[in-house]
Amino acid sequence: MAAPAPLSPLAPKKYPELPAIPGVKFATAAAGVRYSGRTDVMLALFDGPAAVAGVFTRSKCPSAPVDWCREHLSAGVARALVVNSGNANAFTGAVGARAVADVGEAVGKAIGAAPGEVFMASTGVIGEPLEAARIAKALDELVVGVKRDGLMEAARAIMTTDTFPKVATARVKIGETEVVINGIAKGAGMIAPDMATMLSFVFTDAAIAAPALQAMLSKSVRRSFNAITVDSDTSTSDTLLMFATGAAAGRGAPEIVDAGDPTAADFKRALDRLLLDLAHQVVRDGEGARKFIEVRVEGAASRKAAKRIALSIANSPLVKTACAGEDANWGRVVMAVGKAGEKAERDKLDIYFGDIRVAHQGLRDPAYDEAEASSYMKKSKIVIGVKLGIGTARAKVWTCDLTKEYIAINGDYRS
Amino acid sequence: MAAPAPLSPLAPKKYPELPAIPGVKFATAAAGVRYSGRTDVMLALFDGPAAVAGVFTRSKCPSAPVDWCREHLSAGVARALVVNSGNANAFTGAVGARAVADVGEAVGKAIGAAPGEVFMASTGVIGEPLEAARIAKALDELVVGVKRDGLMEAARAIMTTDTFPKVATARVKIGETEVVINGIAKGAGMIAPDMATMLSFVFTDAAIAAPALQAMLSKSVRRSFNAITVDSDTSTSDTLLMFATGAAAGRGAPEIVDAGDPTAADFKRALDRLLLDLAHQVVRDGEGARKFIEVRVEGAASRKAAKRIALSIANSPLVKTACAGEDANWGRVVMAVGKAGEKAERDKLDIYFGDIRVAHQGLRDPAYDEAEASSYMKKSKIVIGVKLGIGTARAKVWTCDLTKEYIAINGDYRS
Repeated sequence: MAAPAPLSPLAPKKYPELPAIPGVKFATAAAGVRYSGRTDVMLALFDGPAAVAGVFTRSKCPSAPVDWCREHLSAGVARALVVNSGNANAFTGAVGARAVADVGEAVGKAIGAAPGEVFMASTGVIGEPLEAARIAKALDELVVGVKRDGLMEAARAIMTTDTFPKVATARVKIGETEVVINGIAKGAGMIAPDMATMLSFVFTDAAIAAPALQAMLSKSVRRSFNAITVDSDTSTSDTLLMFATGAAAGRGAPEIVDAGDPTAADFKRALDRLLLDLAHQVVRDGEGARKFIEVRVEGAASRKAAKRIALSIANSPLVKTACAGEDANWGRVVMAVGKAGEKAERDKLDIYFGDIRVAHQGLRDPAYDEAEASSYMKKSKIVIGVKLGIGTARAKVWTCDLTKEYIAINGDYRS
Repeated sequence: MAAPAPLSPLAPKKYPELPAIPGVKFATAAAGVRYSGRTDVMLALFDGPAAVAGVFTRSKCPSAPVDWCREHLSAGVARALVVNSGNANAFTGAVGARAVADVGEAVGKAIGAAPGEVFMASTGVIGEPLEAARIAKALDELVVGVKRDGLMEAARAIMTTDTFPKVATARVKIGETEVVINGIAKGAGMIAPDMATMLSFVFTDAAIAAPALQAMLSKSVRRSFNAITVDSDTSTSDTLLMFATGAAAGRGAPEIVDAGDPTAADFKRALDRLLLDLAHQVVRDGEGARKFIEVRVEGAASRKAAKRIALSIANSPLVKTACAGEDANWGRVVMAVGKAGEKAERDKLDIYFGDIRVAHQGLRDPAYDEAEASSYMKKSKIVIGVKLGIGTARAKVWTCDLTKEYIAINGDYRS
């Protein structure tokens, strides 16, 4: 491992307090999966069966734990979540599948649950066999050590090249009863859309049936985790799991069985905000990131076209290096619009950096002041706006700049 | 402009002599389009009407000269080619179209041809109006100065961030008559497939009718210029034009009117090799490149799938930074195979670095020696092989590594 990268300059100035969530406890351990001198396994243990929903990588070569979670998600019941860092258990074939089954069995036995009620995720190096025994050995310590306020420690245990733990929390009412949503995430490289992002785990004490939870999660992810990109590289392991303990039902919260239930409207908005917050934190910890970039595309022929153009801009190495160099190089934005393969009419295209219109209807804006634009590019958050002038569809995506530090981090990861 | 980058370590050790091609002469001038103290315009002047074929960027925001060439290509007749560096005349709207028409008219007048017989290309900064008058002013000097052996100088005049001129030559028989093919190219960044690569101009004295020339060129480009990528960014301006003067007919060469004519078989093979040579030179001059990378995908379900997977590997920032770091990180190759969206079965996948099989049937190869693989990664040419084990289709693409120098070059281009 290379020396840990210094804290991202885009890291949050402070972390929120994470209130305890009735119905779930957390523990971490230093199991020595790969790293030494740090925690690398987290356990979330539910007091009773929790409803579970998940969204996974679209990689055609998914990791063994992704296969496992997909297989067991249909039952919709979780008793525990085990996550390790250091080894992704990906491209490990039958050995990897065996390791996952072994962990499921060991955890199930330790907590008195069926193996399929144990959800799992792994992050780290690809292609190395995961030694399930190391995790199994840490189980006693984990099961004994669970506590209500252990989520921040869990967020730290799942970090790899992350420079800060990613946490978010929200309180929201369902009916007259306040419920809590807490979320954690990890991920800094190999971040690209199509739920191909990182690991994230969200917990709530709301009472929500698994199918409704799945519908909410799948919808919310489109404009959050599926709208960010660090390097266009889609991981084999990306996993977002959400658990609803239902403990709030004991305090009078109505059970949500249909995602369209108007009682859940505030909850869904809070979930949208929380996932977007976590997704932005992943971008802010993008490997080598010095700038947080928002790309807004408006006036597209369709939502799909808008998002494709936005991602073409956000994934362009030339746009990203221009941002790193604080260069208001809008010609590269034109290039990225052009290469997206979606309808665009050069002579209708407007381009903005922040509020500064640099190009108007196919020409450099006559009023455009390069000094003003250059000064804008020095900010740590840059908004690139594109108005296509063709239709009414829009999309927003987020990324970071591409710096020499990205190369340094990734040219030296395994050595 | 940043200071010019040092010569690529992957540059050819020597340049071939470019024999004169009967029927065409070349000149260059320092027109001051953007640069000072160097040539920035080239003229190719044909003795008589030459057959012309072309392939262009698929960008939805093409440059004004690309629009111009597309419009006039159907007539298939060229009398001159004018290329400038320093300004791409892209995203310049009606002003850009006017500039192209002005240059066409001025050149046509100077040489006694119709404006539509003057082909054009521009490369450089996007979004700045091109001052046609600067090129027009240099015309007298250009027209007077043309010479048979001016092609190497022309190759230098069209360079932008290139660190070396790219030239290639071949002699081949059509029937009993030897003909010459000479080609030049420029391009170092904003290089990606879909004929979205760079500028390249190929000249031959063979007698080939325009439709046959077009068919040959379109086919040959698939496995050469459309199989390379530096940074996945597709330019607005990319242009490959090929001209056949027909002068060899005077020496007895038969005229080729059908691309399928067996008399042209050797010529087509020579053209394939020449375009591949030029395309490889573009990759070898990829911005910041230290390593030349060949990606071979075999056993895919279709040719399209093979190429898409190969490009997914070749465009992956994580694969490219691993190569830069001389890290035999085959897990990132798995990731790139998985994200391509094409059929792949983890448990059938074999991965090679050179001849070293690092992964076999979904698992790290038990015989794989990391020290040997690490030593292989120190070479300046790296071959990444993927055997999917699904079908029989294959593809090869070429790219370079992603280094800190790429960031340095592109973070400081316009400033």
